[in-house]
Amino acid sequence: MALTVVKIGGNVIDHPSMLSQFVKDFSQLPSPKILVHGGGKIATELCKKLGIETQMIEGRRVTDRETLDVVTMVYGGLINKNVVAQLQSVQCNAIGLTGADAGILPAMRRAPRPIDYGYVGDIKIDEVRSETVKLFLEAGIVPVFCALTHDEQGSVLNSNADSVASAVAVAMSKLYEVELVYCLELPGVMQDIDNPESMIEEIDQASYVRLKDEGIVNKGMIPKIDNAFSAIRQGVSRVIIKHAKNLTNNTGTTIK
Amino acid sequence: MALTVVKIGGNVIDHPSMLSQFVKDFSQLPSPKILVHGGGKIATELCKKLGIETQMIEGRRVTDRETLDVVTMVYGGLINKNVVAQLQSVQCNAIGLTGADAGILPAMRRAPRPIDYGYVGDIKIDEVRSETVKLFLEAGIVPVFCALTHDEQGSVLNSNADSVASAVAVAMSKLYEVELVYCLELPGVMQDIDNPESMIEEIDQASYVRLKDEGIVNKGMIPKIDNAFSAIRQGVSRVIIKHAKNLTNNTGTTIK
Repeated sequence: MALTVVKIGGNVIDHPSMLSQFVKDFSQLPSPKILVHGGGKIATELCKKLGIETQMIEGRRVTDRETLDVVTMVYGGLINKNVVAQLQSVQCNAIGLTGADAGILPAMRRAPRPIDYGYVGDIKIDEVRSETVKLFLEAGIVPVFCALTHDEQGSVLNSNADSVASAVAVAMSKLYEVELVYCLELPGVMQDIDNPESMIEEIDQASYVRLKDEGIVNKGMIPKIDNAFSAIRQGVSRVIIKHAKNLTNNTGTTIK
Repeated sequence: MALTVVKIGGNVIDHPSMLSQFVKDFSQLPSPKILVHGGGKIATELCKKLGIETQMIEGRRVTDRETLDVVTMVYGGLINKNVVAQLQSVQCNAIGLTGADAGILPAMRRAPRPIDYGYVGDIKIDEVRSETVKLFLEAGIVPVFCALTHDEQGSVLNSNADSVASAVAVAMSKLYEVELVYCLELPGVMQDIDNPESMIEEIDQASYVRLKDEGIVNKGMIPKIDNAFSAIRQGVSRVIIKHAKNLTNNTGTTIK
C-alpha cells in the first residue's frame, strides 16, 4: 500500500496564509499520509524575548536545558497543536506527536565530543515504532510529527526535521510503499537557480554524480539529495522535492 | 472492563520531585488507565516574563489570543511532553494529547456574554471520541491529556482540567467501568481540616446533603463533589479524592 510522508519547513510554518493553504492542500492528499513539520523562527524569537542566547556551532543550534524547554513548547505545543487544530477543521483527522509519544521515535543523545550540542538526538532508526504508526494510519488518523524525539531516560531531545521525516519514511517502508515529499521554497532542484523554467524532473544516482561534477547541484542542496538517496537505499520508493504550493500538483524533482 | 482516570493538578506538576514519584506510582497502576494533568504555575510565570497581563474574572483566567498561545505551549508542549517522556522512561507507553489530537475532545467556545473569557471551551460531552481512546487503550497506550480542547474550526481552546477529566471519564463509561481519581493536596474530604485523622471514607448523596447542611464540606470542596456526583449520574462508577502520594494506596474519600 502507498503512503505519503510530507515534510514542511519554516517557510510554511512562519506564514499563516501559506500554512492555511498548505493545510487545505494536505487534507486533499489521499490517505494514508504523515506530516512532519520543522520549527521556523518562532523558537528563536521566543528565546530572544526570554533572554536565552541562541548559540550556533557550524550552523546548528546548541540545545541547552532552557532552549530545550523553548523548543518543546514551540515545536511540540504551539506549532504542532495549531497545525493539528487547523487540519481537524478541514476534516483531516490529525494527531500531533513528538517522538516521545507512544515511544515512536527513540533517539540517542549526541555524544558531547568533539562538539557538545546539548539535548540533541539522533533517531535510532531500527527502533522506530512503525507498528504504532500503522495502527493510527489504519484507523484513519493522520500523524503530524514535530522534530522532537526522546532518550527513553525521561528527556525529550531536539532533532532535525529532515531527519525525522527521513527516519519515519524509512521505518514505514517496511510496511508501505513510501513516497517522501520535501517541500522547499523552490519548484524542485534547479539547473539554473535564476531560471524558474530549469527544474530537473528526475535525478538518479548516475545523473546525480554528473550534476555534482558539473557544479549544478549547489552546496545547500547536496545534503538534501544525499539524504534522499540514503532514504531510497533504506527502502523508500522515491523522494520528491517541490514547492509547498505545488503539493497537490504532479510537479517537482523526483529522486529515485 | 475497569478503567482508571487519574487527574493531577499544579501541586504535582510544579514540584519535580513529586512529579517524578507520581510518574513511578502511576506507572504501577494496572492498565487500562488515563492521565489528565492541570497546568500549575508555569503558564502564569511565562505570561509574566513575556509581559502578558493575566486577567482573572471571578477566579477564572481570561484567555486572550496571546494567553492561548502561552497555554498551548506550556500545557500542550512543555508539561505534557515532559510527563510523557518521564512515563516512557518507566515503561509506561504514554501518548500526550490535547483535545484537538485525533479530534478527541470537541468543545464549544464559551459565549462572550455575560463575561468574555476568550478562547475557553466547554467540552461537547456527547461528541467525545471514546472509540479512538479505546483504540489506544487496547493497544496498551496510555493517553495523557492536558486541559486543551478544540473548536473544530481550527482553534485550540483552554478548558478546565477537572472538566476534561470528568468528560473523559463520563465518555469512557459507555465502554468501561470507570473509576475517576482526583489527586488533591489533602488525603481526602476532611471532617476537620486541621485533623489529618478526620478523613471521610465514603460520601453518598444522602450523607453529602448532611455534610453540606452541617457546614463540614467547605466552599472549595463543594464544586469538586458536585462535579463528582454529576460524573456518577452520567455513568462513572465511583470518584475517589485522595492525595497524589497515596495513588497506589487504597485510601481516600470514595464518592458514589
